[in-house]
Amino acid sequence: MIRRLSIVGLGLLGGSVAKAARAEGLAAEIVAVGRRTESLEPARRDGVVDRITVDLTEGVASSDFCVLAAPVATLAGLLPAVWRALPADAALTDVGSAKAGIVGAAEELGRSAPRQFVGSHPMAGSEQSGYAISRADLFRGALVILTPTDRTDPQAVKRVSEFWEALGARVSSMDPASHDRAVAAVSHLPHLVADALVAAVLRIDPHFLDVAARGFKDTTRIAASNARVWREIFQENREALGEALGAFRHALDDLERLIATGDAAAVERELDRIRREREKLS
Amino acid sequence: MIRRLSIVGLGLLGGSVAKAARAEGLAAEIVAVGRRTESLEPARRDGVVDRITVDLTEGVASSDFCVLAAPVATLAGLLPAVWRALPADAALTDVGSAKAGIVGAAEELGRSAPRQFVGSHPMAGSEQSGYAISRADLFRGALVILTPTDRTDPQAVKRVSEFWEALGARVSSMDPASHDRAVAAVSHLPHLVADALVAAVLRIDPHFLDVAARGFKDTTRIAASNARVWREIFQENREALGEALGAFRHALDDLERLIATGDAAAVERELDRIRREREKLS
Repeated sequence: MIRRLSIVGLGLLGGSVAKAARAEGLAAEIVAVGRRTESLEPARRDGVVDRITVDLTEGVASSDFCVLAAPVATLAGLLPAVWRALPADAALTDVGSAKAGIVGAAEELGRSAPRQFVGSHPMAGSEQSGYAISRADLFRGALVILTPTDRTDPQAVKRVSEFWEALGARVSSMDPASHDRAVAAVSHLPHLVADALVAAVLRIDPHFLDVAARGFKDTTRIAASNARVWREIFQENREALGEALGAFRHALDDLERLIATGDAAAVERELDRIRREREKLS
Repeated sequence: MIRRLSIVGLGLLGGSVAKAARAEGLAAEIVAVGRRTESLEPARRDGVVDRITVDLTEGVASSDFCVLAAPVATLAGLLPAVWRALPADAALTDVGSAKAGIVGAAEELGRSAPRQFVGSHPMAGSEQSGYAISRADLFRGALVILTPTDRTDPQAVKRVSEFWEALGARVSSMDPASHDRAVAAVSHLPHLVADALVAAVLRIDPHFLDVAARGFKDTTRIAASNARVWREIFQENREALGEALGAFRHALDDLERLIATGDAAAVERELDRIRREREKLS
C-alpha cells in the first residue's frame, strides 16, 4: 500500500495512472503535479486525485511513490528538482517512450544521491491525448517495459513492477538501449511511415484520399496522433529511429526490386514469409 | 431482375457477390464458374449458387449479367473466351484491383464485337481470402469504383451501377488510369509499406516483435494478406505503384530531414498538417 502517490503530469498516461491507482485502492493519497491549475482541476473534482499543485517540490515531497508522466522532452529537465525533493527511500519511475536519455540522466544524479529509480515504458496509448481521454483500464493487459541497468536497486524494480501489475499490466525488462531500438522499430518507425503515407497521397493528389478504404485507414490511424507528443518522441529517440529507418528503406528497396524481376514464385515466397511472421502477432 | 447471373471465380469477392445477390433476390439463377469442381461444391451445397461448372463457355453462355472475379493476373486471359460465349446484350464487369490493363483488353475486343462492359473495383476485402470467408454483407457501405471510358456503353454503366447499389455499395466513377494511380497511392503502396515494416523489424531483430503493440498491429495488419493475391496486384499495377513509391520516399526523406533540423515548431506544423488530413477520414 502506497501512503502518498505523486504523479507529475496529468495527461493520458498520468491521468490513467491516477484513475487506475484510485480504482484499485493502491494509494491512501494521490497528489497530481502539473504546470497549470486549470488542467489539474477536473481530476480533483472527479475525486481521481486528492491534491493538486503546480509546485513540483511541494508535490513530490513526502511521497513514497512517484510517477513522472510529463512530456518526454521535459522529463530530464525535471529530474534535478525531483531528486532534491523526493525522499531517498521513495520509488521513482517515469513513463517516457525513449529510455536511454532519461535513465542516463537519472543515473548521473544517482551517483551522488541514490534513489529507487527505474525507467518504465507502458506500451499503451491512443492517437488522442490529454486527461479527458485517460481511463482506469488503460494498462489492463498492456505491456510495460522496465529498463533497469546494473546500477538499478533491485528493490526499485520490485516495487515498480508490482505497481504496474496492480494496474493490470504485464511487465518485462530490457536494457535502455535495446528498449530504444525495439520501440524505434515497432512503434516510432511505423508512426513516421504512417505520417509519410498520408503526406505521399497529399503530394500525388489529395482527392485520392476520397477512395481510401479500411487498409489505408488502419495503416495510417496513428498519423492522427498529437503533433507535440510525436515531435518530442522522434527527436528524443532519433538515433535508434535512424537505424530503424535504414532497415526499413533496405526492406522496401528489396521488395521493389524483387517485384521488378517478375519472378512470381520468389515474390510469393517473400510475401509469405512476411505474412507468417505478421500472423504470429494475432 | 437478372435472369441468369454468372460469376467467374468464387473466392472472397465472387463468393460475396453470389451470397449478396442471393440474399437480395437479384437473380433468378446464379451460375458459378471455377477451375476446380471441389472448390465450387460448397457454394452449391449452401444453395448460394444453383449451378457450378469448370467450363467457362458453358458457364457464361446465355447469362444476362456476368461478373469476372478471377485473380487479377488471369482476368485478361479469360476475356476472349468470355467475349465469344457471352450474349452481346449481357452486362459484363470484373472486380480487379487494377483497371487499365483489363479495360484496355476489353476495349480491344469490343472494337469488333461490342459488349456492355464496364470495369468495377469494389474497395472491400480482407487480409484473408477464399470462398470460406465470403459474406453477403461484404459490399454494404463499401465503395465500388466503376472505370468507364468514352467508349463505354452508358447502358452498361447504368446496369452495373444498379447491381452494386443493390448489394449495398456506394458507386463512383474514375477513368482507368486515374483509378490505378489512386489505388496505388491509398491501397497498394500502404500494403507494400506494411510488408516492408514487418521485414524491417525481422532485419533488425525479430525479438523486437515481442514488444509490438496496437500501433504496429494496426499499421501492419494488411501485411498478413494472401501472398498470391498481392503479388499479382503489385505486378499488375507496378507502373502506378512506382509513382506512389517515389512520392512516399520523398515524403519520408522530407520528414526525416525536418526532424534532423531540430526545429520543433516546423516539425509540429508538418505533423499537424498530416494529422488534420488524416482526421478527415475518420
